[in-house]
Amino acid sequence: MFFEGSEKKVEVLVHNEKFSLLTDISDEFWAELVHRCHAKILSSISNKQCKAFLLSESSLFVWDNYFLILTCGETNLVNSVEYFIEQLGVEKIKHLTYQRKNEYFAHAQPSCFGDDVKRLTQYLPGKAMRFGAMDSHHNFVFHQDNDFKASIDDKTYEIFAYQISEEASNHLTRQGLEANDIREFLRLEQLIPNFQIDDFVFKPYGYSVNAIFGKKYLTIHITPQADSSYVSFESNINLIELLPIILVVLQPSSFDLLSYNETEFKTLTDKNVPQSYVSQSLVQQKLSNGFLVNFANYILPTQQFTQATEFDVAGENHEL
Amino acid sequence: MFFEGSEKKVEVLVHNEKFSLLTDISDEFWAELVHRCHAKILSSISNKQCKAFLLSESSLFVWDNYFLILTCGETNLVNSVEYFIEQLGVEKIKHLTYQRKNEYFAHAQPSCFGDDVKRLTQYLPGKAMRFGAMDSHHNFVFHQDNDFKASIDDKTYEIFAYQISEEASNHLTRQGLEANDIREFLRLEQLIPNFQIDDFVFKPYGYSVNAIFGKKYLTIHITPQADSSYVSFESNINLIELLPIILVVLQPSSFDLLSYNETEFKTLTDKNVPQSYVSQSLVQQKLSNGFLVNFANYILPTQQFTQATEFDVAGENHEL
Repeated sequence: MFFEGSEKKVEVLVHNEKFSLLTDISDEFWAELVHRCHAKILSSISNKQCKAFLLSESSLFVWDNYFLILTCGETNLVNSVEYFIEQLGVEKIKHLTYQRKNEYFAHAQPSCFGDDVKRLTQYLPGKAMRFGAMDSHHNFVFHQDNDFKASIDDKTYEIFAYQISEEASNHLTRQGLEANDIREFLRLEQLIPNFQIDDFVFKPYGYSVNAIFGKKYLTIHITPQADSSYVSFESNINLIELLPIILVVLQPSSFDLLSYNETEFKTLTDKNVPQSYVSQSLVQQKLSNGFLVNFANYILPTQQFTQATEFDVAGENHEL
Repeated sequence: MFFEGSEKKVEVLVHNEKFSLLTDISDEFWAELVHRCHAKILSSISNKQCKAFLLSESSLFVWDNYFLILTCGETNLVNSVEYFIEQLGVEKIKHLTYQRKNEYFAHAQPSCFGDDVKRLTQYLPGKAMRFGAMDSHHNFVFHQDNDFKASIDDKTYEIFAYQISEEASNHLTRQGLEANDIREFLRLEQLIPNFQIDDFVFKPYGYSVNAIFGKKYLTIHITPQADSSYVSFESNINLIELLPIILVVLQPSSFDLLSYNETEFKTLTDKNVPQSYVSQSLVQQKLSNGFLVNFANYILPTQQFTQATEFDVAGENHEL
């Protein structure tokens, strides 16, 4: 069974002079916003500065002046943006960024990035860039083109890990696996001590976790099935520094890093990416909204021949 | 402007005791077969053993006892197989192999490999395999599952080159470029001396060539536009030995090799793949029809940061 783990992501910053997303917006609003893209809220946690919703397809985080939603599978995230604009008015939006990863099973998606951009620009003029080669892992980033300038302190980090080791995949697809087992396997206590945690184990496979501490957040989503395994991390804590632990746990054949406003990207990757990996793509771009975006794709070279992978000819789930 | 260069390919071997595809089948039949998948014949060349049709989307080769058709773009090649079966009867088919490469713009395809396999197995029970990782370059191979056994002398070779050098891309997208310029650029005389050649320069970009000599064939298809460039080679002459010349000409960031029945694959690649490339995937599989299939994907590691690629927000051709 295949599942499209690759995410679409929207970050919306609002004018919050007389308005707070945390206190002026009801949970029902967020439930409907999530529903519009064909996902649903499973649970939530919160502190004074942040509310984190765990979704059937990824996560939604809400702070006082911005929210961040990531959705995977066959969701249509632009629907949620449209709902926000319909309900609150486009003038509430101070800045919007939309990001979309290349998919494993693009044929099964309800839209492509070009379609998404066409819809978004009906409301918000913007620019778009691609990070990474068309024939390899890449991310598209669309951002509203207005006078907004990001603060250099607004740093976020993403890791996308592909084809995790057989050992990791076997562990994460074990029957009867509980959230606690996975937390331990991922070494969450070491990665994010003191964070408040909300997680969910999907049937038959899959795991999502939201973690918050003050304004800090981390979310991890695991599609563990051998052959199309994918694990994504997104956080405003420095994930490049945590990479050595993450790579020991997952041992992926390939992974990507993406960061916003990490000016020390090269120094950090030189220090934290093991030499066994080689870089296929390295992209650095300053966007006109002030964000410095870095993207890198690493692969583990192989010398060993493996067997081909059987394709289930009679299968029902052929979204290739 | 993007164009999907990635090919689908069918090889059909027929029972030829009282029957020849070369002499008993009219050109009108092949024209209709090609039309069914939404391509058309542009020109043809022939000798006593082989007829080669250049198509609006790739190529068709016909020998006495088998034919081979490759189509790119948004063609639906299974339609052509259905036409062949409708017209000649499924019992004429001794063995069928269907191969499909992963696409750049899968979202725009009329079917996915799973769809294709469902249609093919209505006529011909078969097996399918994937060569290469789901998150990277890969080829699916479906083959009829009957008592056919391939001869070890039936060897074919494919090269798929991605992201050719800026120099090569610039050269191949020059205005007013003629077939002769491209033949020279590709060093065809050195690669295939004495072959009969039929080629076509597409507008605004693109080049296809069919070449035959006795039973030998080579076909090359070029989608040269920077950023989604792709060049494919298919032949029953040993392309791995020609790799050093091809790589000097195209300087791709990445390329794949696929061979049927090349038992010396490792020795040949050790000798002919420059050390600057590292292998990401190496797959070897003996199929139940007797074919030994090898697949390898190579990348050129990079140390240099490049800029992101602008995405044409107002563009019409957003099949991503």
